[in-house]
Parts: sequence; structure tokens; C-alpha cells
Amino acid sequence: MGQHAREASALLNTMGTSKKNEALLKTAALLCEKSQEILEANGRDVQRAKLAGMSPSLVDRLALSQARIEAMAEGIRQVAALEDPVGEVISMKTRPNGLIIGQKRVPMGVIGIIYESRPNVTADAFALCFKAGNAVILRGGSDAIDSNKAIVAVIKEALRSVSVEENSIQLVTDTDRETARQMMRLKEYIDVLIPRGGAGLIRTVVENSIVPVIETGTGNCHIYVDETADLDMAVSIVFNAKTQRTGVCNACESLVVHRSVEKEFLDRLVKRLKEKPVTLYGDEAAREAHDAVLPAAEEDWGREYLDYKLSVRTVDSIEEAIAHINRYNTGHSEAIVTRSYENAQKFLNEVDAAAVYVNASTRFTDGFEFGFGAEIGISTQKLHARGPMGLKELTSTKYIIYGNGQVRP
Amino acid sequence: MGQHAREASALLNTMGTSKKNEALLKTAALLCEKSQEILEANGRDVQRAKLAGMSPSLVDRLALSQARIEAMAEGIRQVAALEDPVGEVISMKTRPNGLIIGQKRVPMGVIGIIYESRPNVTADAFALCFKAGNAVILRGGSDAIDSNKAIVAVIKEALRSVSVEENSIQLVTDTDRETARQMMRLKEYIDVLIPRGGAGLIRTVVENSIVPVIETGTGNCHIYVDETADLDMAVSIVFNAKTQRTGVCNACESLVVHRSVEKEFLDRLVKRLKEKPVTLYGDEAAREAHDAVLPAAEEDWGREYLDYKLSVRTVDSIEEAIAHINRYNTGHSEAIVTRSYENAQKFLNEVDAAAVYVNASTRFTDGFEFGFGAEIGISTQKLHARGPMGLKELTSTKYIIYGNGQVRP
Repeated sequence: MGQHAREASALLNTMGTSKKNEALLKTAALLCEKSQEILEANGRDVQRAKLAGMSPSLVDRLALSQARIEAMAEGIRQVAALEDPVGEVISMKTRPNGLIIGQKRVPMGVIGIIYESRPNVTADAFALCFKAGNAVILRGGSDAIDSNKAIVAVIKEALRSVSVEENSIQLVTDTDRETARQMMRLKEYIDVLIPRGGAGLIRTVVENSIVPVIETGTGNCHIYVDETADLDMAVSIVFNAKTQRTGVCNACESLVVHRSVEKEFLDRLVKRLKEKPVTLYGDEAAREAHDAVLPAAEEDWGREYLDYKLSVRTVDSIEEAIAHINRYNTGHSEAIVTRSYENAQKFLNEVDAAAVYVNASTRFTDGFEFGFGAEIGISTQKLHARGPMGLKELTSTKYIIYGNGQVRP
Repeated sequence: MGQHAREASALLNTMGTSKKNEALLKTAALLCEKSQEILEANGRDVQRAKLAGMSPSLVDRLALSQARIEAMAEGIRQVAALEDPVGEVISMKTRPNGLIIGQKRVPMGVIGIIYESRPNVTADAFALCFKAGNAVILRGGSDAIDSNKAIVAVIKEALRSVSVEENSIQLVTDTDRETARQMMRLKEYIDVLIPRGGAGLIRTVVENSIVPVIETGTGNCHIYVDETADLDMAVSIVFNAKTQRTGVCNACESLVVHRSVEKEFLDRLVKRLKEKPVTLYGDEAAREAHDAVLPAAEEDWGREYLDYKLSVRTVDSIEEAIAHINRYNTGHSEAIVTRSYENAQKFLNEVDAAAVYVNASTRFTDGFEFGFGAEIGISTQKLHARGPMGLKELTSTKYIIYGNGQVRP
């Protein structure tokens, strides 16, 4: 598979934008046309999951519908409409010796994606990697294997029909742990591995891969309510960041509140939270400030609940807030609510995360919201890409040098 | 050490350019002032190495002199003169909802460097990492341990004298393998590891590190002499790339020659190579073309000789040349000598390497030659940085978002 992917990648490397877009639009059309086959395969996955006692919320992530397949196709059309990053010359300069040195965006080559149950990742990840000129090797979870096989079969058929190498996408159909481990050793054939899923999957890939990894995902996001905050704005932002969707990495998991406004703020927040079943876990001061707050344990500060739960930490200064956040965060998204210019700047400068907000909800950390279009994930590492990763982040660069006989003295 | 580095990194994160430059200039001055102490320590390393039977060329890499220490100091002054990449806002846009989203260059945080015998790396690596706002943990080889300790002691003294946290640089003084392995596991404290040294060291780090790694170095660089090449230019470029310095990663290790010009080209090349003791190892056609060519084994195609040796491969087309290069190269620097516009463009587009040249020596792949100033190494991977890595490549980015109460609908 590695060898096939390398060969496909060499072809994709020089494929023009219009050909890539033709293949993507054909794929979108064929997914809709063949939706019945995909739904049947997905039905088998769903049935197996139910028999195995999978929780209803996980079954919901696994299940496809006509509408979901159409959304998948629409996502692919949107990727086709995005600007092609490949071939852009970022800089070009002439050196004193006459050498002309340019830096050009090129595809990464072969991208491996290891992911869990949601079958829509199969189509999304293919579209983004393909548009950026990369071959992909996908290794989805066993839960969605029938759906994934059906989706990949349709994509391959679409590629063949427009004379594009079908090995531009390959699916690892054997979903035991050993195949994932083997992918992590394929340094010669895979240029980068992107794990998409829960914290456990990501940790396994980071710890075992010798292929370079882009770490995505887990977000223990904080909102700090400063002593100068507009408390109504703070309530609105916290309510949004906690409850607009709970199972996502940019949801707020922890509140940090200045002691001087804590009582007043928690009073207003708890009133607003009556609309949703949110439980608060706080330190002693937070519990004194409001009886709705249950006691927090040390583990609460580092926990990504992904649920209607929120920890509350009391601080006496912005320095203490920043220190707490830099200790417990996962480098994803952090926000301050403040009216103080100085505190806003300090927070932006000193909090170490992919996205740092002043007076806005952490829920905006997302490729669409940032204006990049679709994204392959949100990088929480500092190497290569940090924050939402769009097409540009799926490319590398190459120096191209034009000479006329220069040698080094 | 990890904890100390994190604390130093938090201070460096907000340190202004003028303060960083003051510390660098003070370091350069103190290295010259204390050169006697450094030379004494280095003398102990050199004596130990000689007793242990180290080869003269390796002893030469290890040995310092007054002139080499002054060159080290001059290197640091040059880094002080480079533009500070930290704080640059690469882009800033206002979204339809009024959010202002900017992307800003920030330090990586803590950089770990694992390197071999040359003690000048200690000062070079510190200067570059420090200027880019990073704390460093250095782990040099046991051969140079006394020199490294003396250099780091001087740097720490210089930092203290200008009230900069001395833990901005830390040296691992225990040089057994276990300390290097421990560094590779310190994901919580080290943001990126850069190995500098031979292929064995780099492989060990890549295979064992769970900290993200930037792979540097090994270069099996090719020059392809096309059927349309100006053969005198080709001789001059090959002679330069092979012999100007042999022990470096951007030296040419392998020639690829179009069959139609092979005889004429090898005749001229062998005449020129009489100035230097270069041995050629070629395939059957190359041996038929010139008797100076000895037989090549399969291993020769993939070998980085770092010596007065050169392999010669015969091809019938540019496609065959590109396929050969993409199979055996290490992604470093590759060149074509040609008069054909079409072949030049094809080579630039299809050869997969950090730097691809038309009509110039591969020896130019270097931070100074590219106009970046000093470099920390040459990345041969596709993630984050590719090619010579200067200050900019030692930084990450962070999204900064200015809102006025936005929540996600």
C-alpha cells in the first residue's frame, strides 16, 4: 500500500487544479448517486454496534442518512471551490551571485489518517488531502468498516471514471491494532500521520509513531473572567462556549474567575445555566460564592469533560489566572473576558495556546469560522501547524534554485 | 531541568529584542575574554580523545583554538544582528462577525538539541534558539563534555551579568545514552528536539522520541548531467559540489549522466578530477565510457560517502534520472545541468527534495548562502521546515483573536 501511495503521490504532485476539481466534483456526484449502497453498508455497521451495546450517542455518530451523505458531498464540493495551495511561490529572491532562490508550496506526499468511528471523516479527509495533491492511506475504526469500504469504493470509482489513479485513496481494511502500528512505522512511505479521535488514540499514535505526527484535538479550554469584565458579556460567552455543543474540542471546560467578581458572576451565570443541565465543580472560594457549586478534585482542573460540566477556579490576579491556564491547558483555545487593555494584551502574550481570545467564545476555533473553509483538524502542537489546519497546512515547501553555472568559492 | 527550562521560556517569551541582543553581545565578549579557560577545558577533551585513539580528522573537529573561539563569538554577534522573528503578525483579518483574527509568530518554547563532538555547536545553537525566544537544553557528546561545560558556564555568567535567567541554557552533563533517551520522553517540557550529527544519531532520535523531532542532515545529493548540458559547466559544477568540501551534507555523492554524453563528459571530468583524489564507482555503461570508473555495487547508489568518492549512474532519459534520484536520495539537494527549458522545469517540479537546482552546485544549500544568516541545520523532512533552518524556523505561531462579545450561533 505504501508503494502504491508513493506512485499515486508522484502523479498527484504534477496534477493541475482543474483535473483535481473535476475528480472531486465527480466524487460528490457519485456519492449522492450511490447513496443507497452506502446506507446499506452503514446499516450493517449500525446494527452490529447496537448488538454490541454501543451507547446511543456513539451510534448517532456512526449512523449515516440521506441528508448526511448529501452533506458529505456538499463538503467535497466546497473543497473543490477552495483555492489550490500547490505551486504558490511564497518568496523568490536573487542573491548577489546571481542565483535565484524561490520557495514553492508542494504537496506533502502521502498522508496517513488514523481515525475512529465517524464515517464522514473518510470523505472529508480524502477531499482535503487530494486537493492539496496528496495520496491518502486511511485507517478508520472497526465500528465503521462497512461504511468506510462502501465510501472508498465509490470514491475510487469516481477517480477511475475521470482517469485519475485510484490509489490516490486507499483504505486499510484490516482494523486490528497491528495494522495501525504498522502504519506508524512506514516512515519510508508515509510523510505525515494525522490521528483524529479521542485522547487515547492520539496518545497512542504520538508515542508509537516514527512517522512525523500532527497532534490534533483535545481541548481543555478555559475562560478567565477578569475583575473588570462586563459580567453580562462574560455570562453570554461562557454559556455559549459551554453549551452550544458539548462534545467538541473547542468547548469551554473550565472557568477561571477573579475573586472580586466571583459571587456576582456566579449568581448571574447559574441563573442563565438553568436553561441547560450544567454542573459546576469548584474550589473552596467558588463553593462559598454559590451553593450550586460542587467540590472539585485536583483531577477536575485537567479534565476535558465533553459534557455539561464545568470546573470553577478562583484567582486573585491575572498572573495567577495565566499560570493556572498554562499549567492545565492542552494548548487549544483560551479566552479572557475583560475591559482592561493591559490585561487583554498580557493574556494574549502570555497564554500558551493555539488560539487566544479576548471577549469572544472559544467555540470559534474552527476552519470555517477562521475563513479557511474545511479543516482536517485542529493542531495543538507547535511544529508545522498550530490551530485549524486547512489546505495550506497539508502542504510542504521546496526551494527551487535557478543558476547559470554558479559554484561555491 | 525541564521545569527550569519551562520557567526560563516563559520569561524569554516576553523579552524584548534589545534585551536579547544585549545578552548575546555580552556572551560574545565574555567568550573571548574567558577563552583561556575554554581552551584549557578543550585541551582535556583533546588529550582524552588522542589517548582513546580518535582519528586525526575527528580530533580536528573537536579541537578549539583562539581563532575558533573568536569565530564562535563572531557567529553570536551575527545572530544578534539578525532580525527578531518573534512578534511578527503574519496576517490579520476581520471576519464578517467582527472578530479580528491575527496569526502571530511566537517562540517554540523549549528546544532540545542532541549533538555530537563539535563544541562550537554549543554556542551556535544557544544563540539561535535564544534570539528566537526559546530556552534550550543541550545534550552534547561525551568527547566534548569539558569544552561544553566551560562554554555553557561562560554563557550562564554572561546571562546573569545582564539579569537574564541563566536557565535559558542548560547542559545535560551526564552523557550516557540514558540521558538522551530521557530527553526524548520529556514531551511535557520540550517542544521540539533537533538532533545534529551523523545518520546513526539522527535515526536513533527519530525512532525513539515522542517529542516532535526536526530531522536534519544526511545528504545523498545527485547531479544529473542532461544530454543538452554545457559539459564544461557540468564539469565545473560537479568538481565544486564533490571536492570543495567533502565531509558536508550538501556535497555531491552521485552523478547521473545521460548515455548520449557520458563518454565525452567523463573524459573531461576525469581530467579535471586529477587535481583531487576522487574515485568513481559506476554502472556497466559508465565503466565502458571511461576506464577510470570502478564497479559500483547496489549499496553505492544510496551511500553518503562524505569522502573523495562519487558514484556514476547511466540513464537514457530525464524520466529515468528523476526516478533514480527519487528512489535513492535523502531529500536534501539535487541538481540538473541542462540547456533544455523543458527538462529544467520537469526536474524542478518532479524531484522530491528540500532544494532543487538548475545549473548550480548543490553546495549552496546553507543558511548564509540562502541569505538567512546562521542556521541551526538543514531539515530533510517535510513537516514544519524544509531546507536550511534559520531563526524563523525556530518559532511557532499563535492565533490572537480580538472580539467584543461574539458567541457562536
